Amino acid sequence: MTKANAAQLPRADRFTAFTTAWAPRIESALDALLPREDEAPAELHRAMRHAMFPGGKRLRPLCALVAAEVSGGDPARALVAASSLELVHTYSLVHDDLPCMDDDALRRGRPTCHVAFGEATALLAGDALLTLAFGAVASAGPDAVSSLALAAGSRGMVGGQVGDLAAEDRPGAVTLDELQWIHDRKTGALITASFEVGLFAGGGRREALEPLRRYGRALGRAFQVVDDILDVTSTAAELGKAAQKDAARGKATYPGLLGLVESRRIAEALATEAVALAPVICAAAGGAGVDSRRGLLEDLAQRCVARKT
Amino acid sequence: MTKANAAQLPRADRFTAFTTAWAPRIESALDALLPREDEAPAELHRAMRHAMFPGGKRLRPLCALVAAEVSGGDPARALVAASSLELVHTYSLVHDDLPCMDDDALRRGRPTCHVAFGEATALLAGDALLTLAFGAVASAGPDAVSSLALAAGSRGMVGGQVGDLAAEDRPGAVTLDELQWIHDRKTGALITASFEVGLFAGGGRREALEPLRRYGRALGRAFQVVDDILDVTSTAAELGKAAQKDAARGKATYPGLLGLVESRRIAEALATEAVALAPVICAAAGGAGVDSRRGLLEDLAQRCVARKT
Repeated sequence: MTKANAAQLPRADRFTAFTTAWAPRIESALDALLPREDEAPAELHRAMRHAMFPGGKRLRPLCALVAAEVSGGDPARALVAASSLELVHTYSLVHDDLPCMDDDALRRGRPTCHVAFGEATALLAGDALLTLAFGAVASAGPDAVSSLALAAGSRGMVGGQVGDLAAEDRPGAVTLDELQWIHDRKTGALITASFEVGLFAGGGRREALEPLRRYGRALGRAFQVVDDILDVTSTAAELGKAAQKDAARGKATYPGLLGLVESRRIAEALATEAVALAPVICAAAGGAGVDSRRGLLEDLAQRCVARKT
Repeated sequence: MTKANAAQLPRADRFTAFTTAWAPRIESALDALLPREDEAPAELHRAMRHAMFPGGKRLRPLCALVAAEVSGGDPARALVAASSLELVHTYSLVHDDLPCMDDDALRRGRPTCHVAFGEATALLAGDALLTLAFGAVASAGPDAVSSLALAAGSRGMVGGQVGDLAAEDRPGAVTLDELQWIHDRKTGALITASFEVGLFAGGGRREALEPLRRYGRALGRAFQVVDDILDVTSTAAELGKAAQKDAARGKATYPGLLGLVESRRIAEALATEAVALAPVICAAAGGAGVDSRRGLLEDLAQRCVARKT
């Protein structure tokens, strides 16, 4: 979507329009990155595609493309690198679902990868998706690769998963600070990295990096608080994965620690924090179309809080 | 080691001298890359360090540094990127040893990672090591990152592991061509990538890339044939891991398909093929110290075949 087109759209539709324009291109990019199902070893490539398609919201690649757009870069240039975020996210789901981890049978309304292909193949499919992510982000340059590696590794997402597992062993004893530590790593780090990678890959202005990071951090926190809320308030059919599983596992969550009302208030406050950064980001990036870009960031933040799945 | 020093050494000692000079620096680089044991989440970082230290031969980083040296680049500049090869190799061992894969209890003479830390932590430690590898190779540039991703992914190492597992399901029916396909991916791809990454990261001459790749391919094949041979002829105490396990699993191997004598002949022929490429590589790289660099490549090839562990 060109900036001229975006500017003509009604204010409330900017992120929807952006998604309509870019989601099919994200699917195409992912499809082009993954080896065909008949390429040897076919079983592995089928398992990788089973995990990737049909996908979820593709939120992380969309965040990366939004970052490219609002920082004055070119989303088209960031498309392949943006796809790497979805590859990392999907690998983490495949490994998270394994019997030695969460042992889940349902994901996006379908059998999880190890249920469909066996544990060994699912393990290796996850490994291959993670590896492919770095192949996809490579051409975006060292900063993009470093950002993704830091966010996905032991100081980021994987560290958060370990913290999450450890917290399950002592239900009722996890503090809000500890929960925040886990969330910031398990979910927040990769969402924040999406904005960094998008800026780097799209050639956006470096001046916008720091406010975009803060925006990503607030958005990531809001997203995870809403995730905790949806786990309580939704059915498995609505989510396409097991619901009420946090409580069943005695997992620390925002609603569990603070109740639903306070959790919703926090999610709204985080979205407001993100929205307040939108003009800062656009001013730092400079250039034309500031209203359009600001609207895009505002709508994205609102969407993350208002979502139903 | 400077080139002047290398030239003064007796001919047969070049790879030993190179290893003596560089192995401690590889250990230091790996130690600096891995988070401290007391950094949260401590359990994860302990598991990662358990898998990494004490290490094995560090063959892949050494190959990368040799590539930097013989292509006219600077091994010191390639040191961190070279370490990424060992991180990938180690992650693959951690995941390979898991119960759903080879289910091994012994590695490098110690309990495997999941025996010491549990399955979930071992799975995540492997994921974190793989991710860290890309953090380490990032600054070497897009070509190095792409090379590592291609070699480690579904078209390389992970693909080879899937092929290997599939071959276990039909013992006695695997052809030599199929075995070669598996070996080239499971072991060969990462060894070949070691040379590529080393040249890119060390700033070597691109003219040396293609012959170095061919050298790496021959060396990788020789290495795996010798691995198959050692599995038959060695004890677990000698190897620091389970021995005779290929036969116990009905796994296709060179000795199994061709016998020990013919397997040794093939390993020698592959080393000879690699040795013959040494002058081609050095001529392509140009510059001074050709004899020394040629000797280094020759000794490395001989060492891979003559090794006992």
